[in-house]
Amino acid sequence: MSTKFVYDFKEGNKEMKYLLGGKGSNLAEMTNIGLPVPPGFTITTEACNDYYASEKSIKAEIREEIKSHLETLEKNLGKTLGSDKNPLLVSVRSGAVFSMPGMMDTILNLGLNDISVIGLTEATKNERFAYDSYRRFIQMFSDVAMEVPKYKFESVLDRIKEEKGYAQDTDLTTEDLKAIVEEFKAIYKKEIGNPFPQDPKEQLLLAIEAVFRSWNNNRAIVYRKLNDIDNNLGTAVNIQSMVFGNMGDTSGTGVAFTRNPATGENKLFGEYLINAQGEDVVAGIRTPQDISTLGTVMPDVFKQFVEITHTLEGHYRDMQDIEFTIENERLFILQTRNGKRTAQAAINVVVDLVDAGIIDEKEAIMRIEPNQLDQLLHPKFEDAAINSSAAIAKGLPASPGAASGKIYFNADDAVEAAGRGEKVILVRLETSPEDIEGMVKAEGILTARGGMTSHAAVVARGMGKCCVAGCGELNVDEINKEVSAKGLVLNEGDYISIDGSTGKVYVGEIKKTEVSLSGNFGRLMGWVDKYKQMAVRTNADNPRDSRAAVEFGAEGIGLCRTEHMFFEEDRIEAVREMILSDSVEEREKALERIIPMQRRDFVEIFEVMDGKPVNIRLLDPPLHEFLPQDDETIKELAKNMGRSVSDIKKKIVDLHEFNPMLGHRGCRLAVTFPEICVMQAKAIMQGAIEATKKGIKVTPEIMVPLVGEVNELKLLRGIIVETVEEVIKQEGVAVDYTVGTMIEIPRACLTSDEIAEVADFYSFGTNDLTQMTYGYSRDDAGKFLGEYEDKGILEKDPFQVLDQTGVGKLVKMAAELGRGVKPDLKLGICGEHGGEPSSVEFCYNLGLNYVSCSPFRVPIARLAAAQASIKNPRK
Amino acid sequence: MSTKFVYDFKEGNKEMKYLLGGKGSNLAEMTNIGLPVPPGFTITTEACNDYYASEKSIKAEIREEIKSHLETLEKNLGKTLGSDKNPLLVSVRSGAVFSMPGMMDTILNLGLNDISVIGLTEATKNERFAYDSYRRFIQMFSDVAMEVPKYKFESVLDRIKEEKGYAQDTDLTTEDLKAIVEEFKAIYKKEIGNPFPQDPKEQLLLAIEAVFRSWNNNRAIVYRKLNDIDNNLGTAVNIQSMVFGNMGDTSGTGVAFTRNPATGENKLFGEYLINAQGEDVVAGIRTPQDISTLGTVMPDVFKQFVEITHTLEGHYRDMQDIEFTIENERLFILQTRNGKRTAQAAINVVVDLVDAGIIDEKEAIMRIEPNQLDQLLHPKFEDAAINSSAAIAKGLPASPGAASGKIYFNADDAVEAAGRGEKVILVRLETSPEDIEGMVKAEGILTARGGMTSHAAVVARGMGKCCVAGCGELNVDEINKEVSAKGLVLNEGDYISIDGSTGKVYVGEIKKTEVSLSGNFGRLMGWVDKYKQMAVRTNADNPRDSRAAVEFGAEGIGLCRTEHMFFEEDRIEAVREMILSDSVEEREKALERIIPMQRRDFVEIFEVMDGKPVNIRLLDPPLHEFLPQDDETIKELAKNMGRSVSDIKKKIVDLHEFNPMLGHRGCRLAVTFPEICVMQAKAIMQGAIEATKKGIKVTPEIMVPLVGEVNELKLLRGIIVETVEEVIKQEGVAVDYTVGTMIEIPRACLTSDEIAEVADFYSFGTNDLTQMTYGYSRDDAGKFLGEYEDKGILEKDPFQVLDQTGVGKLVKMAAELGRGVKPDLKLGICGEHGGEPSSVEFCYNLGLNYVSCSPFRVPIARLAAAQASIKNPRK
Repeated sequence: MSTKFVYDFKEGNKEMKYLLGGKGSNLAEMTNIGLPVPPGFTITTEACNDYYASEKSIKAEIREEIKSHLETLEKNLGKTLGSDKNPLLVSVRSGAVFSMPGMMDTILNLGLNDISVIGLTEATKNERFAYDSYRRFIQMFSDVAMEVPKYKFESVLDRIKEEKGYAQDTDLTTEDLKAIVEEFKAIYKKEIGNPFPQDPKEQLLLAIEAVFRSWNNNRAIVYRKLNDIDNNLGTAVNIQSMVFGNMGDTSGTGVAFTRNPATGENKLFGEYLINAQGEDVVAGIRTPQDISTLGTVMPDVFKQFVEITHTLEGHYRDMQDIEFTIENERLFILQTRNGKRTAQAAINVVVDLVDAGIIDEKEAIMRIEPNQLDQLLHPKFEDAAINSSAAIAKGLPASPGAASGKIYFNADDAVEAAGRGEKVILVRLETSPEDIEGMVKAEGILTARGGMTSHAAVVARGMGKCCVAGCGELNVDEINKEVSAKGLVLNEGDYISIDGSTGKVYVGEIKKTEVSLSGNFGRLMGWVDKYKQMAVRTNADNPRDSRAAVEFGAEGIGLCRTEHMFFEEDRIEAVREMILSDSVEEREKALERIIPMQRRDFVEIFEVMDGKPVNIRLLDPPLHEFLPQDDETIKELAKNMGRSVSDIKKKIVDLHEFNPMLGHRGCRLAVTFPEICVMQAKAIMQGAIEATKKGIKVTPEIMVPLVGEVNELKLLRGIIVETVEEVIKQEGVAVDYTVGTMIEIPRACLTSDEIAEVADFYSFGTNDLTQMTYGYSRDDAGKFLGEYEDKGILEKDPFQVLDQTGVGKLVKMAAELGRGVKPDLKLGICGEHGGEPSSVEFCYNLGLNYVSCSPFRVPIARLAAAQASIKNPRK
Repeated sequence: MSTKFVYDFKEGNKEMKYLLGGKGSNLAEMTNIGLPVPPGFTITTEACNDYYASEKSIKAEIREEIKSHLETLEKNLGKTLGSDKNPLLVSVRSGAVFSMPGMMDTILNLGLNDISVIGLTEATKNERFAYDSYRRFIQMFSDVAMEVPKYKFESVLDRIKEEKGYAQDTDLTTEDLKAIVEEFKAIYKKEIGNPFPQDPKEQLLLAIEAVFRSWNNNRAIVYRKLNDIDNNLGTAVNIQSMVFGNMGDTSGTGVAFTRNPATGENKLFGEYLINAQGEDVVAGIRTPQDISTLGTVMPDVFKQFVEITHTLEGHYRDMQDIEFTIENERLFILQTRNGKRTAQAAINVVVDLVDAGIIDEKEAIMRIEPNQLDQLLHPKFEDAAINSSAAIAKGLPASPGAASGKIYFNADDAVEAAGRGEKVILVRLETSPEDIEGMVKAEGILTARGGMTSHAAVVARGMGKCCVAGCGELNVDEINKEVSAKGLVLNEGDYISIDGSTGKVYVGEIKKTEVSLSGNFGRLMGWVDKYKQMAVRTNADNPRDSRAAVEFGAEGIGLCRTEHMFFEEDRIEAVREMILSDSVEEREKALERIIPMQRRDFVEIFEVMDGKPVNIRLLDPPLHEFLPQDDETIKELAKNMGRSVSDIKKKIVDLHEFNPMLGHRGCRLAVTFPEICVMQAKAIMQGAIEATKKGIKVTPEIMVPLVGEVNELKLLRGIIVETVEEVIKQEGVAVDYTVGTMIEIPRACLTSDEIAEVADFYSFGTNDLTQMTYGYSRDDAGKFLGEYEDKGILEKDPFQVLDQTGVGKLVKMAAELGRGVKPDLKLGICGEHGGEPSSVEFCYNLGLNYVSCSPFRVPIARLAAAQASIKNPRK
């Protein structure tokens, strides 16, 4: 039997992708599940290869097969190519095995010529439409199939519009269009040497050859090279009959979802237009009608359509987004695909489908895009309210949510205003740790500088607070307390609204919808916990965040940063005195004042976490971050300490660093000022014992940051253990504890076999690890990272999505070397990546015990962890 | 046959280290080559293990062996332990297999008691000496062997000295000492419960047991743990007879070198004292005599000694440093070891030994400590001149050499003064790239801040210019142009002298010796080149440094930094205009002005290098480094550019970075400002073609800095190749060139298999790689690195000695991954480590093609490379 080169849509199915291409096999699949797809056929990829093997010619055998399928098509539809009465028109599309956006465009309405244009006029009762279609076809065919430059045709249109004083293409009359068709045919003849082909079969063969040739055009070759696609696959060609929704009042076109894409409600949702083509719906000239009214207009068609929607949901086992056309009361399905939906709808749909027995729990879990959950966890502006307000600026969507309030330009003013009961938006050039109190009290934070991982962004996400960062269009003048954009000047106390999910900034107050978590969300998360095999913890520095995180399902604290506690109003002065001390004794005296406050912090957190593990990191930032910058505060500090202002200023200058990120911070502080480490270890253990006495089971994990050399950890572990044991002895209550380290320096990963010997656990600090592995300062990289993404140098911002190739290799090395010497070494991650789905999967596959992320990302991480387990279950 | 536990020195040799310990086997070796070593015997490490196996007792069998060896010793020497006539006294020393500084101290003069002290008096005719020895012995024995606290004895001495009004121990009379002996014995009895042992054999057994116990004291256990020494090795005990050089005019003591340790001259060099103990020579109370006069005083002894020195040189095949004692005309050799010597002497000695056929060329090469060569390559202050000048401060020895000159506090003043013919020392808080011209003109550089790898240090080493950096004791006031230290204030124009090899700073001018390279240096370096299998290049940015490096044997340029060229007076303004431009066009206009100057730089360097490879790195530092900081210059710049001062200042603020080290620099500049890269590529190729036309073979290596992601190099390689090919086409002259990258970002190492695909070569920039792998900013790490070394966290400064464990692992990974995809990938290193011997060896062992270092370190690197080849020859 000789090879078959052409398949009717009825002859294929979705498994035949390599022979029929992606598009062809899908059209076949839809046809075979009984959908009224406009009929047609597919010329195989083998035919394409044969074309190249036959010195770029379609051999007679294949031409014969095409002819025969075309005849069948005409017979089935009762239409004829080139006819002057309701003529058959077809579309011609390429269809490779893998989607290749660089390839040939579609040719529509093939079959139009000087005669069939009359037939189309008659069938649609619309001469203007027929001639408009004809001139478009000539232009498209010439450009796409024959490579006649498009501008040659465009310039004719432009000339005529100018001559006639028309503003738009739609102003062209039927007579204009007839004249244009003649001019277009003349251009074709001049460029190609032959008249525009009037024989539709010749049009078809030329179009098919053009598709075959497009397989080897430059764009396609480059695309295949970049995407590693085999050059020998070839492309298929799809020939499909055109259907028309503009053939009078028994025709129409529309779009429908099988369920409500906003809520997930199981009720048909969509709209249609009578006597219209698809473009008309998009153009918005006429207002479409609700799909439910179709039942009255064309009851039979509607009934058929409703049945089809059930068939489609059943077949694809998901909510469908369907395009349809009715041609003379005959329904055609043009396309169906899984419908885009809100997070709310997505969850409701999968829970419904599970209840209906269509999918199982695991599939339900796999169906939800983890990042989408973010929508559910934050308030949003009401759509209608947004539509009526124009954004005055757009920054980075740094922390999701929506917030309105009065502008204040510094933390003190913000705290004061909030104290008066005002809603506050804190607007700053950029934030620093000194602004923490103001950030806590504000509804949202807006900064002019800084990226997605700037201080403002990181802290706001940690608090689950709305933040727009790096909004460069704003001119923020902190001194004169005004902010301007696009010529508009706003002053302290003026209302603005910011959307942390879009980065947009609006003037005035905008209404918000508070989204409550529905019961289905809870059911889904229940399944998630059933299949998830890796724990999800949270990064939280205070009882408030800890409580929020527990509500979101956090199973412990993966990172409690102690420095934020240092900034609180009642203790920053003691901290500053400690830093400015000249002797160990003075420093210890100041530290003694801090101990009770730190202890209280820990007790409260232990209480909230109620037996769940709590990982506490010792002081990390460089000391100069705690010192004041403004003269006022310096003066006051000097007075309180009985020192001269110049003395304090000198100390501040001495502490200045060229590259603080790589400076005197992390465990380096504890090495040079062991008394700080002693104070913290003491406060942690005293807190743990106090909580234990209250009946709470506590096992603090004490974490030493920024270790790069095992001797650092050896020394500090010794100091911590000695301190902690002394507290235990004094108090007479034994509490279990572990001592480990944050792995955030490349050298720690490289020497993990040494470090694991003295660590009970590792927590990967992938923020800093990314900074050092790439050599990017996240405070400065904004200056070039945008251009890096634009130029395709970086696919994704490595501070948002863990770079598995480079940074991930270090994480893997650290995990393997560490577990090599200590198989039960506990491993976690507490960088921003701990809440990013692809990074969560990577961590799961490396065998990490947990990921930790900001409270509002906990549900996302839980879902991502469950998906990872389902893909690749751990034994 | 039962185990033998005690060996006479005559019965052992240097191979028996595990049985006799290090010290014991050496004493045996010296005895057996015929040296008159004071006789004695060694109790084996097996005896120590037996002691522990026998519940901490020395079993009878071993006691018997000790007794028998002791009797033989007495017989051979004709002396008896405890005798009242010329008694035998012995020393007892521990001797482990590996040297363990934490173990038991030595006990001298064992055997003294109430009777033998009279014998010693008679033998030495010195009663005071005898009783002084006795009281010292009681104290030492009680402390070392019986753990009676030292202070108990010291307090007696203090009391008596106070009572008698003595200033020093030497004021004590014989009668005083006799009384002290009685008091000491009383203390012993009180503390131990028994009287001080009068039986010398009991003394000996107690001392031996004490040595055995010391094997398991805390210090020793910790030391073994830290140094990975097996706990089961045990320690040996050495019993050696004491000899006395203070027995009258036929006795004496001295020290001699077989050759002159300062010059290497083959002539006995040393001094001695008649009727004296070793301490007397050290105490300096009497002036020793030149060794040559011993021939007149004791001709036979001298003849024997000269013969022995020949024997020793022959046996150890190196210059020896020998300690000897003459007791009653009998010569004893107490110790011999390879003599310490100057670099000059070291070279002359090995060349002599090769000429004498004693060692071969390879051994000569292995004998020279590469770092020592540094002494030969820089001028030094005359020893006498230094001794009479007290240093006023001490900083880091940042770049070797010696310099005197008048103080100037900024680059402009320095340049001006040098123009007037003055010798200048540039004194700054710290230097920045703006100071380059001043540094070039200065004799030496002195800074108050910054470490061994600060800007001043790195640049000065590159220039081979003397530099003392980080001299924190100095208060430098650049505004008022004065510097003070220890209360002394110096002003502009005052003379100071700085020693870059010691870090010392002196007031006034000090005489220097210019060391010329002798013929033997040339001969040694000739052998070095014969055995060396890895090339040594230099880091040089201008023709002057390149020329110096070629004279020192550089085989090419491994790193030519183009940014230093940007700072030269005639072009910095064009560079600044380029940076401050608002559009690509403006920037290109400014760059056009720079091209001819850059081209000229390259032509000159190509000429000096005359066919040797030249690696040119594209612009690396962040742009803000080129901008002025002072108002004056900013004002001038604004005027010249026709811009407002505030405009320029705003731009400077915009370019500010939090962590410039991790900021917008290196290839990131070329990605965002491709026109800079185009300008540089053009200048390089135009320069190469101009040189080629002059008949010089040029193959420029164009190096892209700071690549961390292959796509950066892909993009820039494309731009460079396109630019270069266009120049070649325009000029009609083809020049070979290669394009590669500096590997200095951890991620580059981790993804080296990707990067190697688009690189012709790698040059490891281990300075930055160390910064990022450790997370240390070299500008800031000074604040804690000192403490890190003090606390034993870091063994060595990783910016000086390549960290093989961590950073080296990345280098290895990069080399292996890179060569895995491109076996002929050319690999080099251009960080500071390229001139550090252990790092050079590491690079050689990784298979690198070359190392590159500052010109003055080239001979050191050549020698280190030769030593590496000799240890482990490449096929």
